[in-house]
Amino acid sequence: MTSLSFSPRNGTPVPAPSPSSPEEVAGAVAASADAADAVAAVRPQVRATWLAAIARDLEASAADLTALADEETALGLPRLTAELAGAARTLRFYGSVAAEGSYLGAAIDHASHPDRGIPARPDVRRVRVPLGPVAVFGASNFPFGFGVLGHDTASALAAGCPVVIKAHPAHPRLSARLAEIAQRALAGAGAPAGTLAIVHGFDAGVQLVTHPRITAVGFTGSPAGGLALWRLAATRREVIPVYAEMGTVNTIVVTPAAAAERPREIAAGFVGSFTLGMGQYCTKPGLLLVPAGSGLTEEVGRALEAAAQDGSPLPGWLLTEAIAGAYAAGVRQLEEAGAKVIARVPAVAGGWGAAPVVLRADLGGLVAGSVLLEECFGPVAIVAEYDGRIPGAVLRELPGSLAAGVHGTDGDPDLPGLVAELSRRSGRVVVNGWPTGVAVGWAQQHGGPWPATTAPAHTSVGAAALDRFTRPVAFQDAPDAALPPAVRDGNPWGLPRRVNGIMSQ
Amino acid sequence: MTSLSFSPRNGTPVPAPSPSSPEEVAGAVAASADAADAVAAVRPQVRATWLAAIARDLEASAADLTALADEETALGLPRLTAELAGAARTLRFYGSVAAEGSYLGAAIDHASHPDRGIPARPDVRRVRVPLGPVAVFGASNFPFGFGVLGHDTASALAAGCPVVIKAHPAHPRLSARLAEIAQRALAGAGAPAGTLAIVHGFDAGVQLVTHPRITAVGFTGSPAGGLALWRLAATRREVIPVYAEMGTVNTIVVTPAAAAERPREIAAGFVGSFTLGMGQYCTKPGLLLVPAGSGLTEEVGRALEAAAQDGSPLPGWLLTEAIAGAYAAGVRQLEEAGAKVIARVPAVAGGWGAAPVVLRADLGGLVAGSVLLEECFGPVAIVAEYDGRIPGAVLRELPGSLAAGVHGTDGDPDLPGLVAELSRRSGRVVVNGWPTGVAVGWAQQHGGPWPATTAPAHTSVGAAALDRFTRPVAFQDAPDAALPPAVRDGNPWGLPRRVNGIMSQ
Repeated sequence: MTSLSFSPRNGTPVPAPSPSSPEEVAGAVAASADAADAVAAVRPQVRATWLAAIARDLEASAADLTALADEETALGLPRLTAELAGAARTLRFYGSVAAEGSYLGAAIDHASHPDRGIPARPDVRRVRVPLGPVAVFGASNFPFGFGVLGHDTASALAAGCPVVIKAHPAHPRLSARLAEIAQRALAGAGAPAGTLAIVHGFDAGVQLVTHPRITAVGFTGSPAGGLALWRLAATRREVIPVYAEMGTVNTIVVTPAAAAERPREIAAGFVGSFTLGMGQYCTKPGLLLVPAGSGLTEEVGRALEAAAQDGSPLPGWLLTEAIAGAYAAGVRQLEEAGAKVIARVPAVAGGWGAAPVVLRADLGGLVAGSVLLEECFGPVAIVAEYDGRIPGAVLRELPGSLAAGVHGTDGDPDLPGLVAELSRRSGRVVVNGWPTGVAVGWAQQHGGPWPATTAPAHTSVGAAALDRFTRPVAFQDAPDAALPPAVRDGNPWGLPRRVNGIMSQ
Repeated sequence: MTSLSFSPRNGTPVPAPSPSSPEEVAGAVAASADAADAVAAVRPQVRATWLAAIARDLEASAADLTALADEETALGLPRLTAELAGAARTLRFYGSVAAEGSYLGAAIDHASHPDRGIPARPDVRRVRVPLGPVAVFGASNFPFGFGVLGHDTASALAAGCPVVIKAHPAHPRLSARLAEIAQRALAGAGAPAGTLAIVHGFDAGVQLVTHPRITAVGFTGSPAGGLALWRLAATRREVIPVYAEMGTVNTIVVTPAAAAERPREIAAGFVGSFTLGMGQYCTKPGLLLVPAGSGLTEEVGRALEAAAQDGSPLPGWLLTEAIAGAYAAGVRQLEEAGAKVIARVPAVAGGWGAAPVVLRADLGGLVAGSVLLEECFGPVAIVAEYDGRIPGAVLRELPGSLAAGVHGTDGDPDLPGLVAELSRRSGRVVVNGWPTGVAVGWAQQHGGPWPATTAPAHTSVGAAALDRFTRPVAFQDAPDAALPPAVRDGNPWGLPRRVNGIMSQ
């Protein structure tokens, strides 16, 4: 079976890695399972050096990798160069989180004798242990940031889990190359063989999710894809967690005061954000709620037309033929649901070109189940107008989202209430900014209520991303020699630990 | 429709609360949803006073409550008195966890300017927020510890979520009485109406799990019940987490050295643990692996016969007619699968009496899918013998369990390896003890790989139990007035917080 990779700019096919055979997938998982104990057993500081080695080799090959990525994605060299640099920083960041050690949640309750009617208690020690081999399904739209060496892979490795990656068909050649680089870097850094593997093809993905030795799934992509994997995992004898981070309609509210103060800046910012990377962001602001009569709706239309005329990357190409087809169909569905075009930029000719568009819809149409509240992946967004103050009920009916936002003014009376309201349905609330950038740090949350993710208590970006790939175990009255180092008496790993309820180093 | 509560000792029926009508359930959820914002908004220290008020009133009614519980469960006054005292301590414990504040995971990453090729970053602040109304399905077997006012209710309230409890049909009158006491205590402590409600009946449970305003489900009980609720929640438009803690076969390994050193003590301890409360513990040690030729198998048989003759509560009654029927059928299935009776104590006559029994099975029969590895709720356990050293492969094939254990000796060469091996398939590993007691503290873990729970990253006992009922939200560049108190600049709640990656008070 021949596989192909396509240039989005002109549809030209190039040979790509073949689908992995069932034997190859089984072999990759077996090697991963064989490596699991050793990957889990090393000090987290050691795994940090593995991640740093991958980051170093990623940076060393930046020119080649970004060129290959641009061939396969047409996302443009400036964006891809920045994305690769960010991915390298992210690999090091998760290494630093592992090395810091709080993610292990080490806790010790010493034994107690009976006291004032309270029975005697045993010695109990709790620590998070790595789950084992993790299947990672990278995204189409971030070949570095959420791809083969993206957040899921980096956080799973940091947490002590080997990974088997399913390459995304939007960039199979880049995926294979990234895996090669990582495997060489890992071997050079002393990681066991089997710490990282890659497989290709749809069937390989199904085999991974149903394989008894796979212990968790990380996924970034469409709701259809994520929910399909979640359903598939639910058919296993031993059901495993599927951490699917999916695209959502991310709502931004403009207060009357902000609309009056800076309409052009807000309109231009909105257009810049929803068309960034041709709208192929799960954090795209898909819905802008503006005060009726503010003129902001028309301002947004003018901003879109202007954006396509100033030498910007607009219009451009979508990642794959399937995405381009789904985008055209999705925009048609929005129009059929009553949304009216405010402005549309003609598609670039050839390849997977697509026409950026902004539509207006009635606030009353934004009800649960409407297609207007379903993500349409690509450079499209909806503007809806509200009269007076925005009804809280409208915001509470929005589907769960990865991000939401408010544009207000200094001392804006509407701002605190809107931030609180949006936080009920979203994983991140952005004030006077746009959600398309997701900073990587200790305090980040990239997730949100269903259907933003299948696991709203978790995040796929930020320090807490490691938690997805561990589970706690308690050891009761175990002698020191039988305990994992993290909870031994002498604290040989030098971890922050909670002892009898009190945090201590 | 008339409902009944039965005495397990003689099957005598007594009128019990009627099933809640759909309107009553809807009303309870609506009141819970109305209360949710207020319950979430108060300082955690205030909710600690609510929990303390419930604990106080529980203790004040201890004599009446334990008498009623004994009528409905036949678990005996000594056990029920201790259980009520523990439940009161547990309510206060979760209050103290909330007041300490770490559960909020408050973290602040301050904004940064661009630096050495690293782009500027926004101000990002993360805090866990309560999910909203939680449905709690208490267990049959712990009317206080895991019932209406048990771990799920206490940890959900501590985390800032109102609860709607589905009463267990094994003790409906006690459940109603406990809810009344708690409602009065909460009102007296200033909690909003709607903070705690109770509903009765199977249909009420289905309505709760599928109700759009319910945000999470806590369940303690049988695999059949827990998995049914998990499947039901998966049919919702917005799928919600179901934290089902289910019964498992908890395996205990005896090393050759321990079997040689103290066979009688181990046999007696095993019998005491698997027959405690007539074996109605999710942490019951259901499988004992002993060295072949050690005589321990026969010793266990003698210990069971002795246990029934020394004035102990053995034999006794099971909680309900359904449990008694399932127990008899389950023991038959074990025998049909080839397990042979080592010793059996005749059932007590009348009511839901049952016959405690211990069986032996071949190690080779302990394979995935065998009924020998499925929980049989009640006073039954299996002993299997191994030759030489126990194969790691046998332990790795065990289904996930809440607990496991090892009996060894000082300096036992087999102990560390067995503890490590058992920790792969279990949430808690007990050394030289029995798993039936679950200490409540900061380091406890009561959970484990599927099918021990539907959410192996979580626990239903211990400080981390609160995490199940919260989700993180990040606030990006929000002004102080629009932030929740937990992440405001002045730290008005006095929380432990991570600021720019460093923990600080």
